[in-house]
Amino acid sequence: MKSERKTRSNALGQKGRQTRQEIVRRAAPLFNRQGFAGTSMSDLMQATGLQKGGLYRHFPSKQSLAQEAFDYTWEKAVSERLDGVDKVPGSIPRLKAMIDNFVEKRAHLVPGGCPLLNTAIESDDGNPTLRARARKALAAWTSRLSTIVSEGIKSGEIAPSVNPAELADTVVATLEGALMISRLRQSEASLHTARKHLSATLDTLTPHR
Amino acid sequence: MKSERKTRSNALGQKGRQTRQEIVRRAAPLFNRQGFAGTSMSDLMQATGLQKGGLYRHFPSKQSLAQEAFDYTWEKAVSERLDGVDKVPGSIPRLKAMIDNFVEKRAHLVPGGCPLLNTAIESDDGNPTLRARARKALAAWTSRLSTIVSEGIKSGEIAPSVNPAELADTVVATLEGALMISRLRQSEASLHTARKHLSATLDTLTPHR
Repeated sequence: MKSERKTRSNALGQKGRQTRQEIVRRAAPLFNRQGFAGTSMSDLMQATGLQKGGLYRHFPSKQSLAQEAFDYTWEKAVSERLDGVDKVPGSIPRLKAMIDNFVEKRAHLVPGGCPLLNTAIESDDGNPTLRARARKALAAWTSRLSTIVSEGIKSGEIAPSVNPAELADTVVATLEGALMISRLRQSEASLHTARKHLSATLDTLTPHR
Repeated sequence: MKSERKTRSNALGQKGRQTRQEIVRRAAPLFNRQGFAGTSMSDLMQATGLQKGGLYRHFPSKQSLAQEAFDYTWEKAVSERLDGVDKVPGSIPRLKAMIDNFVEKRAHLVPGGCPLLNTAIESDDGNPTLRARARKALAAWTSRLSTIVSEGIKSGEIAPSVNPAELADTVVATLEGALMISRLRQSEASLHTARKHLSATLDTLTPHR
Protein backbone atom coordinates (compact mmCIF):
# COMPACT_ATOMS: atom_id res chain seq x y z
CA MET A 1 0.00 0.00 0.00
CA LYS A 2 2.81 2.36 0.98
CA SER A 3 4.75 1.64 -2.25
CA GLU A 4 1.55 2.04 -4.32
CA ARG A 5 0.94 5.48 -2.83
CA LYS A 6 4.56 6.38 -3.41
CA THR A 7 4.32 5.34 -7.07
CA ARG A 8 1.21 7.43 -7.56
CA SER A 9 2.79 10.46 -5.92
CA ASN A 10 5.91 10.08 -8.05
CA ALA A 11 3.74 9.88 -11.15
CA LEU A 12 1.89 13.04 -10.12
CA GLY A 13 5.19 14.70 -9.23
CA GLN A 14 6.54 13.88 -12.65
CA LYS A 15 3.44 15.22 -14.34
CA GLY A 16 3.73 18.36 -12.20
CA ARG A 17 7.35 18.81 -13.23
CA GLN A 18 6.42 18.33 -16.89
CA THR A 19 3.65 20.93 -16.65
CA ARG A 20 6.00 23.31 -14.89
CA GLN A 21 8.66 22.85 -17.57
CA GLU A 22 6.04 23.31 -20.30
CA ILE A 23 4.90 26.60 -18.71
CA VAL A 24 8.50 27.83 -18.71
CA ARG A 25 8.97 26.77 -22.33
CA ARG A 26 5.85 28.67 -23.44
CA ALA A 27 6.49 31.72 -21.28
CA ALA A 28 10.15 32.10 -22.34
CA PRO A 29 9.57 33.71 -25.78
CA LEU A 30 7.07 36.16 -24.27
CA PHE A 31 9.50 37.41 -21.63
CA ASN A 32 12.41 37.46 -24.09
CA ARG A 33 10.49 39.47 -26.69
CA GLN A 34 8.27 41.69 -24.57
CA GLY A 35 10.29 41.97 -21.37
CA PHE A 36 9.12 41.45 -17.81
CA ALA A 37 6.96 44.57 -17.60
CA GLY A 38 5.63 44.02 -21.12
CA THR A 39 4.38 40.49 -20.37
CA SER A 40 0.99 40.47 -18.67
CA MET A 41 -0.70 37.68 -16.72
CA SER A 42 -3.23 37.43 -19.52
CA ASP A 43 -0.42 37.01 -22.11
CA LEU A 44 0.91 34.17 -19.95
CA MET A 45 -2.53 32.61 -19.55
CA GLN A 46 -3.06 32.70 -23.31
CA ALA A 47 0.36 31.23 -24.11
CA THR A 48 0.08 28.40 -21.58
CA GLY A 49 -3.64 27.72 -21.87
CA LEU A 50 -3.87 27.88 -18.07
CA GLN A 51 -5.98 30.02 -15.77
CA LYS A 52 -4.36 32.34 -13.26
CA GLY A 53 -4.89 29.77 -10.49
CA GLY A 54 -3.20 27.07 -12.58
CA LEU A 55 -0.16 29.28 -13.15
CA TYR A 56 0.09 30.25 -9.47
CA ARG A 57 -0.06 26.56 -8.51
CA HIS A 58 3.33 26.17 -10.20
CA PHE A 59 4.88 29.60 -9.71
CA PRO A 60 4.24 31.85 -6.71
CA SER A 61 4.63 35.01 -8.84
CA LYS A 62 5.25 36.36 -12.34
CA GLN A 63 8.73 37.21 -11.07
CA SER A 64 9.57 33.59 -10.21
CA LEU A 65 8.30 32.40 -13.60
CA ALA A 66 10.34 35.13 -15.34
CA GLN A 67 13.49 33.98 -13.53
CA GLU A 68 13.08 30.39 -14.65
CA ALA A 69 12.24 31.58 -18.15
CA PHE A 70 15.45 33.62 -18.16
CA ASP A 71 17.51 30.60 -17.10
CA TYR A 72 15.84 28.46 -19.77
CA THR A 73 16.43 31.05 -22.51
CA TRP A 74 20.00 31.72 -21.43
CA GLU A 75 20.82 28.00 -21.28
CA LYS A 76 19.71 27.68 -24.92
CA ALA A 77 21.81 30.70 -25.92
CA VAL A 78 24.90 29.38 -24.14
CA SER A 79 24.63 25.92 -25.72
CA GLU A 80 24.48 27.51 -29.17
CA ARG A 81 27.38 29.88 -28.50
CA LEU A 82 29.63 27.19 -27.03
CA ASP A 83 28.57 24.40 -29.40
CA GLY A 84 31.69 22.55 -30.58
CA VAL A 85 34.00 25.25 -29.20
CA ASP A 86 35.86 22.91 -26.84
CA LYS A 87 36.80 20.60 -29.70
CA VAL A 88 38.57 23.40 -31.59
CA PRO A 89 42.34 23.24 -31.01
CA GLY A 90 44.03 26.50 -29.97
CA SER A 91 42.74 29.47 -28.00
CA ILE A 92 42.39 32.02 -30.81
CA PRO A 93 40.54 29.57 -33.12
CA ARG A 94 38.38 28.66 -30.11
CA LEU A 95 37.46 32.31 -29.48
CA LYS A 96 36.73 32.68 -33.20
CA ALA A 97 34.52 29.60 -33.13
CA MET A 98 32.47 31.11 -30.30
CA ILE A 99 32.14 34.35 -32.27
CA ASP A 100 31.07 32.37 -35.36
CA ASN A 101 28.43 30.61 -33.29
CA PHE A 102 27.15 33.92 -31.93
CA VAL A 103 26.84 35.34 -35.44
CA GLU A 104 25.49 32.24 -37.19
CA LYS A 105 23.86 29.71 -34.90
CA ARG A 106 20.30 30.70 -34.20
CA ALA A 107 18.23 27.61 -34.92
CA HIS A 108 17.58 26.60 -31.30
CA LEU A 109 17.36 30.04 -29.73
CA VAL A 110 14.28 31.34 -27.98
CA PRO A 111 13.02 34.20 -30.20
CA GLY A 112 13.57 37.79 -29.08
CA GLY A 113 17.34 38.31 -29.17
CA CYS A 114 19.94 37.78 -26.46
CA PRO A 115 18.32 37.20 -23.05
CA LEU A 116 21.35 38.66 -21.29
CA LEU A 117 21.13 41.93 -23.23
CA ASN A 118 17.34 42.12 -22.92
CA THR A 119 17.28 41.38 -19.20
CA ALA A 120 20.29 43.58 -18.43
CA ILE A 121 18.68 46.58 -20.12
CA GLU A 122 15.29 46.08 -18.56
CA SER A 123 16.52 45.31 -15.05
CA ASP A 124 19.42 47.75 -14.69
CA ASP A 125 17.23 50.40 -13.08
CA GLY A 126 15.13 48.06 -10.96
CA ASN A 127 14.10 44.41 -10.56
CA PRO A 128 17.15 43.30 -8.52
CA THR A 129 16.26 39.60 -8.74
CA LEU A 130 16.26 39.51 -12.55
CA ARG A 131 19.31 41.73 -12.58
CA ALA A 132 21.19 39.27 -10.36
CA ARG A 133 20.28 36.53 -12.83
CA ALA A 134 21.66 38.55 -15.76
CA ARG A 135 24.82 39.44 -13.83
CA LYS A 136 25.44 35.79 -13.08
CA ALA A 137 24.96 34.91 -16.75
CA LEU A 138 27.39 37.64 -17.84
CA ALA A 139 29.96 36.52 -15.25
CA ALA A 140 29.75 32.89 -16.40
CA TRP A 141 30.16 33.88 -20.06
CA THR A 142 33.07 36.31 -19.59
CA SER A 143 34.79 33.90 -17.24
CA ARG A 144 34.58 31.14 -19.84
CA LEU A 145 36.11 33.43 -22.49
CA SER A 146 38.69 34.68 -20.05
CA THR A 147 39.77 31.10 -19.29
CA ILE A 148 40.28 30.41 -23.00
CA VAL A 149 42.52 33.51 -23.20
CA SER A 150 44.51 32.49 -20.10
CA GLU A 151 45.10 29.05 -21.56
CA GLY A 152 46.36 30.70 -24.75
CA ILE A 153 48.80 32.81 -22.74
CA LYS A 154 50.02 29.74 -20.85
CA SER A 155 50.59 27.80 -24.07
CA GLY A 156 52.44 30.73 -25.68
CA GLU A 157 49.80 31.26 -28.35
CA ILE A 158 48.70 34.65 -26.95
CA ALA A 159 51.05 37.42 -25.79
CA PRO A 160 51.35 37.63 -21.98
CA SER A 161 50.59 41.37 -22.14
CA VAL A 162 46.96 40.58 -23.04
CA ASN A 163 44.53 40.98 -20.12
CA PRO A 164 42.14 37.99 -20.27
CA ALA A 165 39.24 39.69 -18.46
CA GLU A 166 39.51 42.82 -20.63
CA LEU A 167 39.62 40.81 -23.83
CA ALA A 168 36.57 38.82 -22.69
CA ASP A 169 34.69 42.07 -21.99
CA THR A 170 35.66 43.47 -25.39
CA VAL A 171 34.39 40.40 -27.23
CA VAL A 172 31.09 40.38 -25.31
CA ALA A 173 30.58 44.16 -25.62
CA THR A 174 31.24 44.14 -29.38
CA LEU A 175 28.94 41.18 -30.06
CA GLU A 176 26.08 42.38 -27.85
CA GLY A 177 26.28 45.94 -29.21
CA ALA A 178 26.32 44.60 -32.78
CA LEU A 179 23.30 42.42 -32.00
CA MET A 180 21.40 45.48 -30.78
CA ILE A 181 22.22 47.29 -34.05
CA SER A 182 21.38 44.21 -36.12
CA ARG A 183 17.97 43.75 -34.52
CA LEU A 184 17.14 47.44 -34.77
CA ARG A 185 18.05 47.55 -38.48
CA GLN A 186 16.69 44.06 -39.16
CA SER A 187 19.93 43.28 -40.96
CA GLU A 188 22.75 40.88 -40.12
CA ALA A 189 25.41 43.20 -41.55
CA SER A 190 26.53 44.67 -38.21
CA LEU A 191 27.09 41.15 -36.81
CA HIS A 192 29.35 40.30 -39.73
CA THR A 193 31.20 43.58 -39.26
CA ALA A 194 31.68 42.76 -35.56
CA ARG A 195 33.06 39.32 -36.43
CA LYS A 196 35.50 40.80 -38.96
CA HIS A 197 36.67 43.39 -36.46
CA LEU A 198 37.08 40.91 -33.57
CA SER A 199 38.82 38.41 -35.83
CA ALA A 200 41.34 41.08 -36.89
CA THR A 201 41.82 42.05 -33.24
CA LEU A 202 42.44 38.43 -32.20
CA ASP A 203 45.02 38.04 -34.98
CA THR A 204 47.11 40.82 -33.42
CA LEU A 205 47.36 39.04 -30.06
CA THR A 206 50.04 36.48 -30.90
CA PRO A 207 53.39 37.15 -29.23
CA HIS A 208 55.87 39.18 -31.31
CA ARG A 209 58.61 36.83 -32.38
CA MET B 1 -10.36 93.63 -29.69
CA LYS B 2 -9.00 91.25 -32.27
CA SER B 3 -5.39 92.00 -31.27
CA GLU B 4 -6.30 91.65 -27.58
CA ARG B 5 -7.76 88.19 -28.20
CA LYS B 6 -4.72 87.24 -30.20
CA THR B 7 -2.38 88.35 -27.41
CA ARG B 8 -4.30 86.30 -24.87
CA SER B 9 -4.28 83.24 -27.07
CA ASN B 10 -0.52 83.62 -27.65
CA ALA B 11 0.03 83.88 -23.91
CA LEU B 12 -2.03 80.72 -23.33
CA GLY B 13 -0.24 79.04 -26.22
CA GLN B 14 3.11 79.81 -24.68
CA LYS B 15 1.99 78.56 -21.29
CA GLY B 16 0.66 75.41 -22.97
CA ARG B 17 3.99 74.85 -24.70
CA GLN B 18 5.83 75.32 -21.41
CA THR B 19 3.57 72.83 -19.64
CA ARG B 20 4.02 70.38 -22.48
CA GLN B 21 7.80 70.71 -22.32
CA GLU B 22 7.71 70.32 -18.54
CA ILE B 23 5.68 67.10 -18.89
CA VAL B 24 8.27 65.73 -21.32
CA ARG B 25 11.12 66.73 -19.00
CA ARG B 26 9.54 64.95 -16.05
CA ALA B 27 8.42 61.88 -18.00
CA ALA B 28 11.81 61.36 -19.71
CA PRO B 29 13.66 59.73 -16.77
CA LEU B 30 10.71 57.40 -16.14
CA PHE B 31 10.65 56.08 -19.70
CA ASN B 32 14.47 55.89 -19.87
CA ARG B 33 14.76 53.91 -16.62
CA GLN B 34 11.60 51.80 -16.64
CA GLY B 35 10.89 51.48 -20.35
CA PHE B 36 7.63 52.13 -22.17
CA ALA B 37 5.79 49.08 -20.81
CA GLY B 38 7.23 49.63 -17.33
CA THR B 39 5.93 53.21 -17.10
CA SER B 40 2.29 53.38 -16.04
CA MET B 41 -0.15 56.26 -16.38
CA SER B 42 -0.10 56.56 -12.60
CA ASP B 43 3.73 56.85 -12.62
CA LEU B 44 3.34 59.67 -15.16
CA MET B 45 0.60 61.36 -13.13
CA GLN B 46 2.76 61.23 -10.03
CA ALA B 47 5.87 62.58 -11.78
CA THR B 48 4.04 65.44 -13.47
CA GLY B 49 1.53 66.26 -10.74
CA LEU B 50 -1.22 66.14 -13.39
CA GLN B 51 -4.42 64.12 -13.59
CA LYS B 52 -5.02 61.76 -16.50
CA GLY B 53 -7.18 64.38 -18.22
CA GLY B 54 -4.45 66.99 -17.87
CA LEU B 55 -1.92 64.68 -19.49
CA TYR B 56 -4.26 63.75 -22.33
CA ARG B 57 -4.90 67.44 -22.99
CA HIS B 58 -1.24 67.70 -24.07
CA PHE B 59 -0.56 64.21 -25.43
CA PRO B 60 -3.15 62.03 -27.14
CA SER B 61 -1.52 58.83 -25.79
CA LYS B 62 1.26 57.41 -23.62
CA GLN B 63 2.92 56.45 -26.92
CA SER B 64 3.09 60.05 -28.17
CA LEU B 65 4.50 61.24 -24.84
CA ALA B 66 7.07 58.42 -24.92
CA GLN B 67 8.18 59.47 -28.40
CA GLU B 68 8.78 63.06 -27.37
CA ALA B 69 10.50 61.87 -24.20
CA PHE B 70 12.80 59.71 -26.35
CA ASP B 71 13.70 62.67 -28.58
CA TYR B 72 14.37 64.83 -25.52
CA THR B 73 16.56 62.17 -23.87
CA TRP B 74 18.42 61.38 -27.09
CA GLU B 75 19.05 65.06 -27.81
CA LYS B 76 20.73 65.38 -24.40
CA ALA B 77 22.83 62.25 -25.04
CA VAL B 78 23.92 63.49 -28.48
CA SER B 79 24.93 66.93 -27.19
CA GLU B 80 27.12 65.30 -24.53
CA ARG B 81 28.69 62.83 -26.96
CA LEU B 82 29.44 65.44 -29.59
CA ASP B 83 30.38 68.24 -27.20
CA GLY B 84 33.53 69.96 -28.48
CA VAL B 85 34.18 67.19 -31.02
CA ASP B 86 34.03 69.48 -34.06
CA LYS B 87 36.74 71.71 -32.63
CA VAL B 88 39.23 68.83 -32.42
CA PRO B 89 41.59 68.84 -35.43
CA GLY B 90 41.99 65.54 -37.28
CA SER B 91 39.60 62.66 -37.78
CA ILE B 92 41.17 60.09 -35.46
CA PRO B 93 41.49 62.55 -32.53
CA ARG B 94 37.90 63.60 -33.28
CA LEU B 95 36.65 60.00 -33.04
CA LYS B 96 38.63 59.60 -29.84
CA ALA B 97 37.09 62.77 -28.43
CA MET B 98 33.61 61.38 -29.08
CA ILE B 99 34.59 58.12 -27.36
CA ASP B 100 35.98 60.10 -24.39
CA ASN B 101 32.71 62.00 -24.15
CA PHE B 102 30.71 58.76 -24.21
CA VAL B 103 32.84 57.30 -21.42
CA GLU B 104 33.14 60.42 -19.26
CA LYS B 105 30.47 63.05 -19.88
CA ARG B 106 27.35 62.19 -17.94
CA ALA B 107 26.44 65.37 -16.05
CA HIS B 108 23.56 66.44 -18.28
CA LEU B 109 22.20 63.03 -19.24
CA VAL B 110 18.70 61.87 -18.41
CA PRO B 111 19.19 59.03 -15.87
CA GLY B 112 18.69 55.44 -17.00
CA GLY B 113 21.48 54.77 -19.49
CA CYS B 114 21.56 55.24 -23.26
CA PRO B 115 18.08 55.95 -24.67
CA LEU B 116 19.05 54.39 -28.00
CA LEU B 117 20.09 51.11 -26.37
CA ASN B 118 17.10 51.07 -24.01
CA THR B 119 14.56 51.87 -26.71
CA ALA B 120 16.14 49.56 -29.29
CA ILE B 121 16.01 46.60 -26.92
CA GLU B 122 12.47 47.24 -25.75
CA SER B 123 11.02 48.02 -29.17
CA ASP B 124 12.81 45.47 -31.38
CA ASP B 125 10.00 42.94 -31.05
CA GLY B 126 7.12 45.40 -31.20
CA ASN B 127 6.23 49.08 -30.85
CA PRO B 128 7.10 50.12 -34.43
CA THR B 129 6.76 53.85 -33.69
CA LEU B 130 9.34 53.88 -30.92
CA ARG B 131 11.49 51.52 -32.94
CA ALA B 132 11.48 53.95 -35.88
CA ARG B 133 12.60 56.70 -33.50
CA ALA B 134 15.51 54.56 -32.25
CA ARG B 135 16.48 53.59 -35.81
CA LYS B 136 16.58 57.22 -36.84
CA ALA B 137 18.73 58.08 -33.82
CA LEU B 138 21.15 55.24 -34.64
CA ALA B 139 21.31 56.29 -38.30
CA ALA B 140 22.10 59.90 -37.37
CA TRP B 141 24.83 58.87 -34.95
CA THR B 142 26.55 56.32 -37.23
CA SER B 143 26.30 58.69 -40.18
CA ARG B 144 28.02 61.42 -38.17
CA LEU B 145 30.87 59.05 -37.25
CA SER B 146 31.03 57.73 -40.77
CA THR B 147 31.44 61.27 -42.12
CA ILE B 148 34.38 61.89 -39.76
CA VAL B 149 36.03 58.70 -41.09
CA SER B 150 35.41 59.68 -44.73
CA GLU B 151 36.97 63.08 -44.12
CA GLY B 152 40.00 61.34 -42.62
CA ILE B 153 40.33 59.16 -45.71
CA LYS B 154 40.04 62.19 -47.97
CA SER B 155 42.72 64.07 -46.03
CA GLY B 156 45.07 61.06 -46.09
CA GLU B 157 44.94 60.59 -42.31
CA ILE B 158 43.05 57.28 -42.54
CA ALA B 159 43.88 54.43 -44.94
CA PRO B 160 41.51 54.26 -47.94
CA SER B 161 40.92 50.54 -47.24
CA VAL B 162 38.89 51.47 -44.12
CA ASN B 163 35.13 51.20 -44.59
CA PRO B 164 33.59 54.28 -42.89
CA ALA B 165 30.17 52.72 -42.22
CA GLU B 166 31.73 49.55 -40.77
CA LEU B 167 34.06 51.50 -38.53
CA ALA B 168 31.14 53.63 -37.33
CA ASP B 169 29.16 50.47 -36.50
CA THR B 170 32.14 48.97 -34.65
CA VAL B 171 32.57 52.08 -32.49
CA VAL B 172 28.86 52.25 -31.66
CA ALA B 173 28.55 48.49 -31.00
CA THR B 174 31.59 48.42 -28.71
CA LEU B 175 30.48 51.46 -26.70
CA GLU B 176 26.85 50.40 -26.35
CA GLY B 177 27.79 46.82 -25.44
CA ALA B 178 30.29 48.10 -22.88
CA LEU B 179 27.63 50.41 -21.43
CA MET B 180 25.30 47.44 -20.97
CA ILE B 181 28.06 45.56 -19.11
CA SER B 182 28.97 48.63 -17.07
CA ARG B 183 25.39 49.24 -15.94
CA LEU B 184 24.83 45.58 -15.12
CA ARG B 185 28.01 45.38 -13.04
CA GLN B 186 27.61 48.91 -11.65
CA SER B 187 31.24 49.54 -12.55
CA GLU B 188 32.82 51.85 -15.13
CA ALA B 189 35.65 49.40 -15.85
CA SER B 190 34.14 47.94 -19.05
CA LEU B 191 33.72 51.47 -20.50
CA HIS B 192 37.41 52.18 -19.91
CA THR B 193 38.30 48.82 -21.47
CA ALA B 194 36.18 49.69 -24.52
CA ARG B 195 37.91 53.06 -24.86
CA LYS B 196 41.36 51.46 -24.66
CA HIS B 197 40.40 48.86 -27.25
CA LEU B 198 38.85 51.37 -29.67
CA SER B 199 41.74 53.75 -29.25
CA ALA B 200 44.21 50.96 -30.15
CA THR B 201 42.03 50.04 -33.13
CA LEU B 202 41.90 53.65 -34.37
CA ASP B 203 45.71 53.89 -34.10
CA THR B 204 46.06 51.06 -36.63
CA LEU B 205 44.02 52.89 -39.28
CA THR B 206 46.65 55.30 -40.53
CA PRO B 207 47.93 54.55 -44.04
CA HIS B 208 51.07 52.39 -44.21
CA ARG B 209 53.92 54.58 -45.32
